[in-house]
Amino acid sequence: MLKVAVVGASGYTGVELLRLLYCHPEVAVTCITSEQSASRPVADLFPTLRGRYAQVLENLEPVRVAGKADLIFTALPHKAAMEVVPTFLKLGKRVVDLSADYRFCDAAVYEKWYEPHLDPENLKVSVYGLPEVRREKIAGACLVGNPGCYPTSVILGLMPLLKNGLIDPSTIISDSKSGTSGAGRGAKVDNLFCEVNEGFKAYGVGGVHRHIPEIEQELSLLAGERITITFTPHLVPMDRGILSTIYARLTGNHSVAELVELYAGFYGGEPFVRVLPAGNVPSTAHVRGSNFCDIGLSVDSRTGRVIVVSAIDNLVKGAAGQAVQNMNIMYGFPETMGLELLPVFP
Amino acid sequence: MLKVAVVGASGYTGVELLRLLYCHPEVAVTCITSEQSASRPVADLFPTLRGRYAQVLENLEPVRVAGKADLIFTALPHKAAMEVVPTFLKLGKRVVDLSADYRFCDAAVYEKWYEPHLDPENLKVSVYGLPEVRREKIAGACLVGNPGCYPTSVILGLMPLLKNGLIDPSTIISDSKSGTSGAGRGAKVDNLFCEVNEGFKAYGVGGVHRHIPEIEQELSLLAGERITITFTPHLVPMDRGILSTIYARLTGNHSVAELVELYAGFYGGEPFVRVLPAGNVPSTAHVRGSNFCDIGLSVDSRTGRVIVVSAIDNLVKGAAGQAVQNMNIMYGFPETMGLELLPVFP
Amino acid sequence: MLKVAVVGASGYTGVELLRLLYCHPEVAVTCITSEQSASRPVADLFPTLRGRYAQVLENLEPVRVAGKADLIFTALPHKAAMEVVPTFLKLGKRVVDLSADYRFCDAAVYEKWYEPHLDPENLKVSVYGLPEVRREKIAGACLVGNPGCYPTSVILGLMPLLKNGLIDPSTIISDSKSGTSGAGRGAKVDNLFCEVNEGFKAYGVGGVHRHIPEIEQELSLLAGERITITFTPHLVPMDRGILSTIYARLTGNHSVAELVELYAGFYGGEPFVRVLPAGNVPSTAHVRGSNFCDIGLSVDSRTGRVIVVSAIDNLVKGAAGQAVQNMNIMYGFPETMGLELLPVFP
Amino acid sequence: MLKVAVVGASGYTGVELLRLLYCHPEVAVTCITSEQSASRPVADLFPTLRGRYAQVLENLEPVRVAGKADLIFTALPHKAAMEVVPTFLKLGKRVVDLSADYRFCDAAVYEKWYEPHLDPENLKVSVYGLPEVRREKIAGACLVGNPGCYPTSVILGLMPLLKNGLIDPSTIISDSKSGTSGAGRGAKVDNLFCEVNEGFKAYGVGGVHRHIPEIEQELSLLAGERITITFTPHLVPMDRGILSTIYARLTGNHSVAELVELYAGFYGGEPFVRVLPAGNVPSTAHVRGSNFCDIGLSVDSRTGRVIVVSAIDNLVKGAAGQAVQNMNIMYGFPETMGLELLPVFP
Repeated sequence: MLKVAVVGASGYTGVELLRLLYCHPEVAVTCITSEQSASRPVADLFPTLRGRYAQVLENLEPVRVAGKADLIFTALPHKAAMEVVPTFLKLGKRVVDLSADYRFCDAAVYEKWYEPHLDPENLKVSVYGLPEVRREKIAGACLVGNPGCYPTSVILGLMPLLKNGLIDPSTIISDSKSGTSGAGRGAKVDNLFCEVNEGFKAYGVGGVHRHIPEIEQELSLLAGERITITFTPHLVPMDRGILSTIYARLTGNHSVAELVELYAGFYGGEPFVRVLPAGNVPSTAHVRGSNFCDIGLSVDSRTGRVIVVSAIDNLVKGAAGQAVQNMNIMYGFPETMGLELLPVFP
Repeated sequence: MLKVAVVGASGYTGVELLRLLYCHPEVAVTCITSEQSASRPVADLFPTLRGRYAQVLENLEPVRVAGKADLIFTALPHKAAMEVVPTFLKLGKRVVDLSADYRFCDAAVYEKWYEPHLDPENLKVSVYGLPEVRREKIAGACLVGNPGCYPTSVILGLMPLLKNGLIDPSTIISDSKSGTSGAGRGAKVDNLFCEVNEGFKAYGVGGVHRHIPEIEQELSLLAGERITITFTPHLVPMDRGILSTIYARLTGNHSVAELVELYAGFYGGEPFVRVLPAGNVPSTAHVRGSNFCDIGLSVDSRTGRVIVVSAIDNLVKGAAGQAVQNMNIMYGFPETMGLELLPVFP
Repeated sequence: MLKVAVVGASGYTGVELLRLLYCHPEVAVTCITSEQSASRPVADLFPTLRGRYAQVLENLEPVRVAGKADLIFTALPHKAAMEVVPTFLKLGKRVVDLSADYRFCDAAVYEKWYEPHLDPENLKVSVYGLPEVRREKIAGACLVGNPGCYPTSVILGLMPLLKNGLIDPSTIISDSKSGTSGAGRGAKVDNLFCEVNEGFKAYGVGGVHRHIPEIEQELSLLAGERITITFTPHLVPMDRGILSTIYARLTGNHSVAELVELYAGFYGGEPFVRVLPAGNVPSTAHVRGSNFCDIGLSVDSRTGRVIVVSAIDNLVKGAAGQAVQNMNIMYGFPETMGLELLPVFP
Repeated sequence: MLKVAVVGASGYTGVELLRLLYCHPEVAVTCITSEQSASRPVADLFPTLRGRYAQVLENLEPVRVAGKADLIFTALPHKAAMEVVPTFLKLGKRVVDLSADYRFCDAAVYEKWYEPHLDPENLKVSVYGLPEVRREKIAGACLVGNPGCYPTSVILGLMPLLKNGLIDPSTIISDSKSGTSGAGRGAKVDNLFCEVNEGFKAYGVGGVHRHIPEIEQELSLLAGERITITFTPHLVPMDRGILSTIYARLTGNHSVAELVELYAGFYGGEPFVRVLPAGNVPSTAHVRGSNFCDIGLSVDSRTGRVIVVSAIDNLVKGAAGQAVQNMNIMYGFPETMGLELLPVFP
């Protein structure tokens, strides 16, 4: 049994990790930390876990935590992660970090969009953990930067087009929509039920969202040229799910059927990417609670644009599920182990 | 008192007309029809109206209806409208039609996207009823084609940019999202609570939605050149509201401040268009139940694109409220009469 | 024009007052206060008001506020209200207080369920502002204690039965359900969208909710004997609305038809109470945004119990609307003035 | 591997069975039927299953179905079930029926609340499948009548009190609330998103809901005397979940602590019943997607009543999960096999 710690378990990503790990036959969760709620039973914080997790939340003392686990999931805010990850690594532990701290190839990019980087050394060796892009590197990694939720949906949506040079990269626009769990569990007026319910809005409009450099880094690597995109996030009055509607101009004439065939071939061996038949459009409702990424394709022949629609559960394929998938790859478990829960519908 | 009929009152647009007209001091609703529910009290169909509307729903016999009213709101499905409107007009009545039947300058466009047009004569004289675009023509019209919900949000969002030639028209993309009342009150599995709730999806992707030719007709008139756009509608798990996120490439360098100033000036005299200060983004929650159209502006300087976000209540400014606004203009009532209800929040 | 102040306008009750007062033809809102947001435009706090309320929020300095208005709505938390109301009254102003501070006949009851009462003098002269119960006293009152939301739904639901002695008062149980706006606009984790959405729960179970003594006071007065009830509140994943399902054993044999007739007669002259025909059950959806209280009646002949179901909008008839109704009564305006907005559906 | 058929898979219970059975290591789903959608891939009907269920829906020809499976789950409407179950049994198959057809000891009761019973012979041998009540009988049964959703929540909520004679059975009232999936997947206006969302209502008030005789049968057996209850169902604007708030007068003085201890002991060995510590109240959000039944206890010492609150997921412990639990018992699998999915939160 692999001994695993979940660090920073008081948020929605933390509890989702605990939900998924409970069903994983090769894992034992041996340590759960939360600074705000240390010494409280985790089931007090998340009554869903009552009767199945008897653990008490611990303080985040890195050395002690490292003593209890071989693999550590850090579900901390950015900056907080890079304050503790170096210790874990120094003590020979492997880490899947769910913050933004280890997602960038270039510290300068991180520093432009976030703040000074405290651990540039480890940043250099960290692997951006999108299995569909770099499964082999993940397998050998000690430190995985688990992708952001929006980036996962956009990168998987565009990868086959970019790798095959079928679109003009300067025309990419991703209009993305997220459920409210993406905003976290902090007590803010903006996230109150009555503020979110029965409303729909954009936020971070105009090229300012911090997921943009992450998306651009990966798209640029896939295309082999530097790509700048327009990205607009929106807030949907629902708990879970991200849907990205991605626009780009096709460089040639391609029918939907051709593109679906291309995608189906490209993702043929992927256990969690489902390419929908032509005429089908993804819904977040059909991936809810699961690790799937559903992708649908359309062509607007009037304007020569392709429209890719991708749907994930932001807490699963967009966070905790992808982290478990990365763990499976790192430890040689079957990649779908613990992740075969089908979507919950309705 | 102006005698008014609401024809086709069993849907969400019909009941919204009744809600608004009840507060209008110059109007008496003298006839309400519904084929499916004729002879039932309207309050049976819509318990919200109990105690305030005593009327019984009538069959739609055009001559009899015309005998009871001076102005007729036709809230029928397309095709059903053009089957009765000619009779109303022949009998000297004025009509605000909320279907698509009288929105197009060119019958051929209607026939390409809908079906053979049964009343091309009256189509020629009908006026597309977007007050912010052609208030004077509406004032003198006998027949107003009340705009669609999506078109209202897109056209108002783009008008100042197009009229001032600030964007490249070939780059326009509108990613639009609608609450579920836009799908009507028909009994379909797809619109059941459990199918819609906790999900978000696109539909009609790839240049096939029937609001496209309506949007393009008006944008082309505003720009003075033929415009083709990409338009993707989405379904939001909420009752009311449309938010359109509209992208286009700016032809020059313009700051957000400049654009906000332009819009504020352009819409300065408009009672129902609210241009938000820079940095503010509209939400459908802030227009719910009201006739407002809120517009926010952003510039993505990294890509040279402007992003316009517009929000309306699809049943008010997107349908019944705009119809009442048109009536006010046609009869010389103050344009805001009966429409000064503030948004309901939360 | 009556000059009116809204004190404590940063919550949902405050904005609802502003929404309703905007449509009231005899009222000018001359002062709006909020301690937390003083000096900010009210439209910043509530974008729904943009373009219609130009006011800036003021500090709550009672003497200055009193100088600007004749009637003051205090939408403050309990305790905060009784700290300022005495000043308003001393300066000859009339007050409708929406907190619990002036709802009780007996200071001791208040002190048992809340805390020491700071203004027992004025408590003695305050009038419990449920128009259907004591319209005449309200008309002459300088200080009205505006009823709580749950109490409004329960008292109106039971009044005809109690006044006619048709039920055994020791068997009364009210199982009540409220939308989330009842929990206020405070930033608490429990009220986050993701905590409330897709869940349903009871709270304050076991005779501990502070609305209990208020309900019991009024029911006891109506029955002419001391009544103790069981009351359980619940939280519904929706913004607005209260539905109370009230159980009691009938003392005699009464058919639903008889009871409906009794209620219809009892409430015949009431503009805002709608008694539903037998076989109809109220829904909060049918009163949303309006000042109505809908009441439906059933008899379980198997067990001899009557089941009364009452529905209100907690922010309107349960708070701001009732406050405006009280104002209308106090100033001799038509009781429905400004309150004829029909429910918003859907 | 046990070969299993799911008959009537086009509804929410059917797809939930497929979701749960997919994770069950001892089961192979060999046949899925749907009359309305025969010959369509099941993933067309439920895109959640895409890539995991390749099956095509079949017609319901009982002999052919029986030839493919050893255990048959009938997720049909009542009446439709008893038309095919006799054939399955005759052919030596075991059946878990999720309709009401085999839940009653007495055909006369069924006939009073439903319609003439077509299979009274098998009704006599069927076992009411609430494992916490009669696990042994289920183990040996060929035909299990899987309990209704409301009854499961009420019976588990009251069992310890009744078995210990702590309440006056004539005072039992269950005020129960269900998510909308309980209303099924039929295309009805009443269940449209816009009709359900943002509203809360009672239905079937006054002792008329068909789950009443089922509840009374089981409560009477537990108490050893004939029990008649008042039961009111309500519709909550959410997908899943039932919360029952159950009232009864205590025959003696009992503290909450005592009752919690009693329940904790009573349900100590039960894998799916979680008794909450005093002061905690269940929420449907904390059992969503899982087979748990959470129970909280309160005493209203002012009125001498106990208030039991129980929460289940109506599609899991209230239907498909309980059916799988029964299957596990019938075949000697560990009772929790395939049912260890933790609740999905948020």
